[in-house]
Amino acid sequence: MESTALITDPYELTMAQSYIEHGKTGRAVFSLFVRRLPENRNFLVACGLETLMKSLENFKFGDDQLKYLKSLGIFKDWFLDYLRELELDLEFYVMDEGTIFFQNEPIVQVEGSLPKAQIIETLVMNIIHFETVIASKAVRSYLTAKGRTLVDFGLRRAHSFTGGLLGARASYVGGFNGTSNLQAGMMYGIPVFGTMAHSYVMIFDEEEEAFRAFAKSFPERVFLLIDTYDTVEGARKALKLLKDGIRVIGVRIDSGDIPELCREVRRIFDEEGFRDVKILVSGGVDEYDIDRWLSEGAPIDAFGVGTKLLTSSDAPYLDIAYKLVEYEGKPKFKESPGKKTFPYKRQVIRYYEKGKFSYDRVVKYEEGELIKKLSFPLPTLKEIREKVLHQLSQLPEELKTLKKVDYRVEVE
Amino acid sequence: MESTALITDPYELTMAQSYIEHGKTGRAVFSLFVRRLPENRNFLVACGLETLMKSLENFKFGDDQLKYLKSLGIFKDWFLDYLRELELDLEFYVMDEGTIFFQNEPIVQVEGSLPKAQIIETLVMNIIHFETVIASKAVRSYLTAKGRTLVDFGLRRAHSFTGGLLGARASYVGGFNGTSNLQAGMMYGIPVFGTMAHSYVMIFDEEEEAFRAFAKSFPERVFLLIDTYDTVEGARKALKLLKDGIRVIGVRIDSGDIPELCREVRRIFDEEGFRDVKILVSGGVDEYDIDRWLSEGAPIDAFGVGTKLLTSSDAPYLDIAYKLVEYEGKPKFKESPGKKTFPYKRQVIRYYEKGKFSYDRVVKYEEGELIKKLSFPLPTLKEIREKVLHQLSQLPEELKTLKKVDYRVEVE
Repeated sequence: MESTALITDPYELTMAQSYIEHGKTGRAVFSLFVRRLPENRNFLVACGLETLMKSLENFKFGDDQLKYLKSLGIFKDWFLDYLRELELDLEFYVMDEGTIFFQNEPIVQVEGSLPKAQIIETLVMNIIHFETVIASKAVRSYLTAKGRTLVDFGLRRAHSFTGGLLGARASYVGGFNGTSNLQAGMMYGIPVFGTMAHSYVMIFDEEEEAFRAFAKSFPERVFLLIDTYDTVEGARKALKLLKDGIRVIGVRIDSGDIPELCREVRRIFDEEGFRDVKILVSGGVDEYDIDRWLSEGAPIDAFGVGTKLLTSSDAPYLDIAYKLVEYEGKPKFKESPGKKTFPYKRQVIRYYEKGKFSYDRVVKYEEGELIKKLSFPLPTLKEIREKVLHQLSQLPEELKTLKKVDYRVEVE
Repeated sequence: MESTALITDPYELTMAQSYIEHGKTGRAVFSLFVRRLPENRNFLVACGLETLMKSLENFKFGDDQLKYLKSLGIFKDWFLDYLRELELDLEFYVMDEGTIFFQNEPIVQVEGSLPKAQIIETLVMNIIHFETVIASKAVRSYLTAKGRTLVDFGLRRAHSFTGGLLGARASYVGGFNGTSNLQAGMMYGIPVFGTMAHSYVMIFDEEEEAFRAFAKSFPERVFLLIDTYDTVEGARKALKLLKDGIRVIGVRIDSGDIPELCREVRRIFDEEGFRDVKILVSGGVDEYDIDRWLSEGAPIDAFGVGTKLLTSSDAPYLDIAYKLVEYEGKPKFKESPGKKTFPYKRQVIRYYEKGKFSYDRVVKYEEGELIKKLSFPLPTLKEIREKVLHQLSQLPEELKTLKKVDYRVEVE
């Protein structure tokens, strides 16, 4: 990874220079938290800590960065030297990745010399915000799909390829089974999955010819896209292959009246005893579709969820903030209308009733379960995903639906 | 930049292998176009071509990528060798970056050997889609701000840092004057801009002390954030600095009743003759706010537009597709419900009336103004931005508002 040092706002650096000039280099605590949950979210899933830690390792001001900063004519030479030598000896008090959290609960708290804790603000926000947005979106598909397979198909409409990569990671954390993003497969070991595009079907003179050609190329991976011309006809052609002894694993439907088509396609296969052929649905799918289609009894085995997942289209951002809460042991807070903050480093205490989350209290920092001083090694991606799924079993049922429910968080 | 070769879906590669196995390596044309404009967009601004070309230069399958692909057990060895030697000798028929376009108009058309034109699908879509989304969002702020300064403040909530970087580029194309993203400043030469955060004000015992400390550090860049405690009081403290001969360039207001506060703050400065002090407003601003505030007569000189710009929150994605339209000179199209495509490589002819866009026709390809074979060098970012601003002068007035108006596009 290239240097991440300029993934920041100029004001982080002007403030840092000025802090040093005025002797403000004491111990500060900054807190990253979400003020209010979006209207379409009952809970959030903390995500991005590993990405953040890797990015901070590359937070180095080298020649290119310093030459550019000097060219701006804003910074003093001694400050550029300070940046060149910068060591981020900061302490992080964090929720584990995969922790379910709510409003006003600190996800990441950064403690250390004021200029250093300030300088990383933009990077901390950028990374934790995005992966948290996506993990929190993905888990909604997980809850509505009730055990069906979920594959991230979002790379092509993700916001940049890094957005696609980190989004694949975050969707996996949020309960997805795989991705169509090969880079995510290589970098994170996430299972990859793919079928075929309409272009493949169109390049052959007949749809059936295309299906047979694909089966010849990949006899163990015959997953056929059947909606290029007529979905029901497409299913009948897939059936012909099955009757010829070709092992069609599944079919993909990307358009049309999904519940109706799925029922008809299912019947075509079932009538001939091919009950194992899977039906995968894609094409602008989100958790609202999944919920509606399954409640209508549509026989769907798997969903390719793409655009609306990786853009988190119904809640593309969080009201997240990285705020100074403590300096040299003294409380810090602001009073801007609608943007009040709470002072001090914090712990979150989660109360349970009959094994389910009951309510949370946010208290002055003490040792506890939810927020700990960061230590290495970090958990693996699989462990993070399992942590999410375990907590879902502790989540009150009403929070698991797509209907808005507020969870109680008391801030001391 | 690292290899971009795995920024793709597995199916691009399985299809490519199968195409070659079945002798389907003839000349194909794929077309990237938007089927329908989002409800909140009257026109779109093509963006991302330079980023795409740079990414394609790095579309190389090296040892890491090939080792990973081999580990999947899907691909034949001869195909992995093909990928290692892959040369993307493709032709691109494109709209210049910064071209205003509408539904069913091809932005990028890729012509060449079928497997090669197929393999780059995901990368083409990912890059052009995102930058087009952001440029098309940014230009709405440009149109409503009517000459006031616009700065991209979105990095912290952009979808990944690459999203922030490319988003800064695309906002500049869409008429923004600068960004708070230092990396974008370094890489693209976009003017950078920053003020101070609430933490800076909070770290001093008194707000006025903070203002004076900042002025001492950066006497030529005194831009003060005045809403940490009480905005009007904050303005009065800024006034004290002005009366002491400190050149306060401007103040930033990040919360509260914006039109009301701006009027009061303006009055405080104007009454004492400091008419040059700028008022910059930030905090969840978008074009709807800008339009409303300015129509209420709020005296605002500049806007910091962030979260809603770089997530394009009211239209975070486009109904964009990359479709096979021609193979070996023959037309290709599909008939999926709601997702029909038009065959052949295309040209767009724009008709004008009294110097304004009247309607467009999408015809079979012939030489023309809007779509040309890609040639180098590409225009500079400033030239692209100027192209956008020039076309805005040719855009019918009704298309420039935030009210939905449909532009006529005839497809032959």
